[in-house]
Amino acid sequence: MVMAKVSGGARAVARCDTLAKAPFSDSADGLTRTYLSPAYHAAQDQLAEWMAGAGMSVRRDAAANLIGRYEARKPGAPALVIGSHVDSVRGAGAYDGPLGILLGIEAVAALSSGGVQMPFAVEVYAFGDEEGSRFPAAMLTSRAVAGTLDPAALDVADRDGVRLGDLLDLAAYPSAARRPGDVIAYLEAHIEQGPVLEAEGLALGTVTGIAAQLRFEIGLSGTAGHAGTTAMGLRRDAVAGMAEMVLAAEEVATAGPADLVATVGVVEVPSGAANVIAGRSRFTLDVRAGHAAVRDRAADEILRRFRTIAGRRDLGLSVRQVHDLPASPCDAGLMDLLDAAMAEAGHRPFRLVSGAGHDAMIMAALCPTAMLFLRCRGGVSHNPAEHVEPADAQAALDVMSGFIRLLGAKCDA
Amino acid sequence: MVMAKVSGGARAVARCDTLAKAPFSDSADGLTRTYLSPAYHAAQDQLAEWMAGAGMSVRRDAAANLIGRYEARKPGAPALVIGSHVDSVRGAGAYDGPLGILLGIEAVAALSSGGVQMPFAVEVYAFGDEEGSRFPAAMLTSRAVAGTLDPAALDVADRDGVRLGDLLDLAAYPSAARRPGDVIAYLEAHIEQGPVLEAEGLALGTVTGIAAQLRFEIGLSGTAGHAGTTAMGLRRDAVAGMAEMVLAAEEVATAGPADLVATVGVVEVPSGAANVIAGRSRFTLDVRAGHAAVRDRAADEILRRFRTIAGRRDLGLSVRQVHDLPASPCDAGLMDLLDAAMAEAGHRPFRLVSGAGHDAMIMAALCPTAMLFLRCRGGVSHNPAEHVEPADAQAALDVMSGFIRLLGAKCDA
Repeated sequence: MVMAKVSGGARAVARCDTLAKAPFSDSADGLTRTYLSPAYHAAQDQLAEWMAGAGMSVRRDAAANLIGRYEARKPGAPALVIGSHVDSVRGAGAYDGPLGILLGIEAVAALSSGGVQMPFAVEVYAFGDEEGSRFPAAMLTSRAVAGTLDPAALDVADRDGVRLGDLLDLAAYPSAARRPGDVIAYLEAHIEQGPVLEAEGLALGTVTGIAAQLRFEIGLSGTAGHAGTTAMGLRRDAVAGMAEMVLAAEEVATAGPADLVATVGVVEVPSGAANVIAGRSRFTLDVRAGHAAVRDRAADEILRRFRTIAGRRDLGLSVRQVHDLPASPCDAGLMDLLDAAMAEAGHRPFRLVSGAGHDAMIMAALCPTAMLFLRCRGGVSHNPAEHVEPADAQAALDVMSGFIRLLGAKCDA
Repeated sequence: MVMAKVSGGARAVARCDTLAKAPFSDSADGLTRTYLSPAYHAAQDQLAEWMAGAGMSVRRDAAANLIGRYEARKPGAPALVIGSHVDSVRGAGAYDGPLGILLGIEAVAALSSGGVQMPFAVEVYAFGDEEGSRFPAAMLTSRAVAGTLDPAALDVADRDGVRLGDLLDLAAYPSAARRPGDVIAYLEAHIEQGPVLEAEGLALGTVTGIAAQLRFEIGLSGTAGHAGTTAMGLRRDAVAGMAEMVLAAEEVATAGPADLVATVGVVEVPSGAANVIAGRSRFTLDVRAGHAAVRDRAADEILRRFRTIAGRRDLGLSVRQVHDLPASPCDAGLMDLLDAAMAEAGHRPFRLVSGAGHDAMIMAALCPTAMLFLRCRGGVSHNPAEHVEPADAQAALDVMSGFIRLLGAKCDA
């Protein structure tokens, strides 16, 4: 049994590597696998084979999700769903998404090879378009499963003008929805896509939720001037003001709790020239934290400093809030189960916030959710250099198996 | 005589206003007058009429400069040249260039109406393409006059594909050069295009020279990362590093002498996104001062701080120097004459560096040069809002007339 587990984690990683190449990639070099592309269908076919090999019955739903089901002791019982996404960004790494599916398959394989059945079915979902890399939309297929999909969102076309409705029956699409009573919980294992676990020296972490996010577009207006003729003290420089604000945002976030982050990712000086003091600048500000209150306090403080800086520099300041995404907390009871499974497997329980969105955030509308993060080297993701150690994948598989057992015990109790 | 002088300054301003509209502008609204355009020729014709009215003989040279000459006591004597440019940027103000020409015409008008002749001729030059707004070149016509023009520089075309050689005889072009012995000095009156004089509460200033200039292109490389998943302490953020460097450049320049300026006018984050920590950034750094040593000390200190910041933030830093323009000092004796003329006219002598380039910088290769700066409202230039008070123009005319008289006395002595 121990031997089987060890090979499970390594096998999940090896299978991700297999899926990172043609015919499971749409590009000859590197991995690009977009929703409903030839590589997408090829990967589904391969996953279906592996699901069947692990003892699951396999089906596709109306949103083109692939679903394997390992039956409960009592056929037709509600299911624990384990899932992640099979689509990728362009120029992707091998593990972002597929690893969660393959660890789900390994967890089921461990049950079926041991002849173990649970009081619930275990279903593995390979979701379709988490990344939004083909159509201008994201998480359409998990939204369909969770029953939160607005059918209007399906009216999309890719960059070649191919419409989603050309590929799938849009009228049937929402029938991918699951009834709440049929799903008892959702578990997703996913690479962290950040460097926190690596910095902590840990293979695994229990995700407390998807961070609450605020996004702003900031505009500054000063006075354009000749770089040679305007003495320093007489400037109203929109670049220097922006620079001071970037550092203010960094300082506020750095001083806050570990899960608070603030990022200026876009900076623009329209028609900037080397010999012109910028009269206008624009930048984005993205603020996230596990709790909306922490996020909001930080954003308030950052914007307060922005106003002070603009006032002192005599710059016009415009602030436009463009996103306000609430936190999506994971289920407290399921987090405790994950922590307990980690402790049992000899790993120090550690909790962290997910700054990125995942299908789990969507599934939270349907059922209690849990997420397990795996360390990835250097925090690198969305990049061919993405790397997961097979030993870490095995650790995740151990914890997922423990989680299933503990959840079963709870159901039986 | 006093009445005539008062009207001279106001008339120079009024004539600039006249030249700021069709047919002296190539655009129906606002002022755009590019080298050799219909508006350029129309403005030359009008200036020729005003030059003749002031008692000058008028000619055009092979570079299409317009030249008025007011003869010396002894015909054919060397000349004091007073000049500036008649071309403009796109969407220009009325005074940048033309005011210096018209004040020259008024200075001559004052001489001729008083029947005064000097030991030198006074020539007024209306130069052609100081701004470089039509062809990808600048100051071609003053370079031709100064005899420093590389004929290869004439092989240029405008955005419509019209070549300079389609409009003028390029073989004859360098014959616009003056022999050094024929020009005893060059005087240019020009709006400051900066806010220093206004801040000092002064109408006029003696220019000590054109600032020495260094320009750099700076590149930073960090690690692109997910804005949501990368804790603050684990970032290598190319935007935050750039921001710290912008402020360092500002701080060094602000701490230095008044003529030292440092400007970051271009900032770029290639493929920046609101949810991505920037892995790369680029910006320009422009450093100027009246003396190369001051400029170089400041640039060294700024680049030293850049290296410290890059080291602390673990960012890759590339520095490419793209310009090194030496200072072009004005003539010490002529500066003293301008100061003396200012004191005589009741203005506090004040010296300042020109951060911008002017035809005077080119003419310095031919003869000793002097420049007189006029206050312009808010330091605004290259903009329709450019404004000069008629009283300030009159003050400039008084000083120019005094300068001519003092220079004459010196020649006679």
